[in-house]
Amino acid sequence: MKRLLLLAITWLALAAAPAVAERTYTLKLAETWGPNYPILGEATRNMAAMAETMSNGRLRIRIDSSNKHKAPFGIFDMVKAGQYDMGHTASYYYKGKIPNAMYFTTVPFGMIAPEMYAWFYFGDGMALMEKVYAPHGLLSFPGGNTGNQMGGWFREEITSLDDLKGLKMRTPGFAGEVMSELGVAVTNIPPGELYTALERGTIDALEWVGPALDFSMGFHQIADYYYSGWQEPGAEVQFLINQRSWERLPEDLQEILRVAMRTAAYDMYIQSTHQSGEAWAQMKEAYPDVAHRTFPPEVIAALREATDRLLMEAAEADPLAREIIDSQHDYLQQVRRWTNISDRAYLNTVAPVE
Amino acid sequence: MKRLLLLAITWLALAAAPAVAERTYTLKLAETWGPNYPILGEATRNMAAMAETMSNGRLRIRIDSSNKHKAPFGIFDMVKAGQYDMGHTASYYYKGKIPNAMYFTTVPFGMIAPEMYAWFYFGDGMALMEKVYAPHGLLSFPGGNTGNQMGGWFREEITSLDDLKGLKMRTPGFAGEVMSELGVAVTNIPPGELYTALERGTIDALEWVGPALDFSMGFHQIADYYYSGWQEPGAEVQFLINQRSWERLPEDLQEILRVAMRTAAYDMYIQSTHQSGEAWAQMKEAYPDVAHRTFPPEVIAALREATDRLLMEAAEADPLAREIIDSQHDYLQQVRRWTNISDRAYLNTVAPVE
Repeated sequence: MKRLLLLAITWLALAAAPAVAERTYTLKLAETWGPNYPILGEATRNMAAMAETMSNGRLRIRIDSSNKHKAPFGIFDMVKAGQYDMGHTASYYYKGKIPNAMYFTTVPFGMIAPEMYAWFYFGDGMALMEKVYAPHGLLSFPGGNTGNQMGGWFREEITSLDDLKGLKMRTPGFAGEVMSELGVAVTNIPPGELYTALERGTIDALEWVGPALDFSMGFHQIADYYYSGWQEPGAEVQFLINQRSWERLPEDLQEILRVAMRTAAYDMYIQSTHQSGEAWAQMKEAYPDVAHRTFPPEVIAALREATDRLLMEAAEADPLAREIIDSQHDYLQQVRRWTNISDRAYLNTVAPVE
Repeated sequence: MKRLLLLAITWLALAAAPAVAERTYTLKLAETWGPNYPILGEATRNMAAMAETMSNGRLRIRIDSSNKHKAPFGIFDMVKAGQYDMGHTASYYYKGKIPNAMYFTTVPFGMIAPEMYAWFYFGDGMALMEKVYAPHGLLSFPGGNTGNQMGGWFREEITSLDDLKGLKMRTPGFAGEVMSELGVAVTNIPPGELYTALERGTIDALEWVGPALDFSMGFHQIADYYYSGWQEPGAEVQFLINQRSWERLPEDLQEILRVAMRTAAYDMYIQSTHQSGEAWAQMKEAYPDVAHRTFPPEVIAALREATDRLLMEAAEADPLAREIIDSQHDYLQQVRRWTNISDRAYLNTVAPVE
């Protein structure tokens, strides 16, 4: 009888083996964004919901927004230190610590969203991003694209390079550096104060994101000219993962996490497209004076010239920077010729919308 | 002792409960494409691999290509009958059986890929597609986008509407109907005979897909003019699933399948973008005489007028057709205004590629 009991236990224990492996993993994620932030914050929640349902509850992602961790631009450090397993942020925020991080977000005059994804997934993008992040014990994945960002809101029309001289404009990062080269007085002002600063003339212009995220800021109520962009043609945010947290996951949950991040990123690009269309229509309806403009050719030429100069300086200072800049440049040359004969030609010749 | 044995069995059986639920599901998928077909066939394999790894082998997709099932355009019937659990095909192939199916693939002068995804996932697209497929006991999901398809290969330049009169061209489907209205002698020729037909002058022109899939067909060796398209601005293929097969899956595997399909679809669009860029560069290098052209404005205007007329006839014949056509029209009007001030303006003003 005792032998039978042992047999039964052995048999059942074997049958139960898969169940033993079914432990639950909880990953803590810190995001740059505030609580319930539209589009960017929805990407993390979309990712977490897919991962949890696909894993039947075995993989849980607990999201802390910036009100909780108080370090919106400290995501890189917190995930590197293992304080958080994951982050959702933008690579170019860490330019100060890892200068080569910025190219994985977007580059002025660079690739638009589908071109950028093609470079990441079918060109050298992922391998180069690993080269930058692996030394920090981090994995990095595309985390969602805002689509083409607008060049900004201007209270007066820009008809020449002269109009930019001395113009007070809020535009951060690399675009700000480029604008400075053209004589713009670049300032940075916290988001909460931007509307008042523009209204009172503390600044003459500002650049935020695009219609989907600009709408709730209300800039269209106080500035008439909305310029097409040049500075962030396909800004991709990112997921960061601590290498040790990643390696603790079994292979199926790694794949669930990888695919959930990839889908949430693509979904964010499509949601941005949708909400930009919706918000732009709402702005135009409520404020019919709001007008779309493109910068005159001499302004574009000067911006491009300054961009190329800054990129060349970066390439000369660091071999890995050169490798990334060259890879993006060569890839863009190839893929853009395709974009030009497909979507661009189509949009120009066949599809007028009044 | 017997009681102890029972207790042990009960306890172990309870602990083993999750393992009992871990049964394996195998779904049979029939695809329209031949074995190892590039891009379109890679989408099904990508989807199946993600589903199998994410489910730790619990969800297996067995793929039959057209050489196996012999019915490339019978996918709808086979999945409806339950002969296959799933299909990978294009909705517009079933225009004859379900006329409203075609709008979910692409429509001449319609949306480009990101606009189309936005309509599916954030507009009314998914709900309308369900309205068309649910009565057949089928679920339908986006299955991958080819990107903007080219207008075709022409041996002579098209400079006016007159050049189209009597022109012998292979162009199937709705685009063929529209071309007929302009006096084109539309023919259909099996893929394997297309090259010879064009070379020998049996036809003067043909439309296939775009550089990525046209390249291996060799048309660039015998026709110099490659025209931008108007007829399939963002062709989305589809996954079809038998409703009963879907309902047999537990909730976690349904989500794994849903997300694997969604990711594989997006991935196919990005792969098409990548390979089109690569193939177009290769064509131009090997055959420098190959030239890109856009149809003259009077041709575009006539194509658009004929398209609008055929769509209006379809809308008048069927209330559901009208609902879909109106939904796509209204959505395009909104989202295209955004595309125009973002990617289109950017591509036109800031990003020349020699």
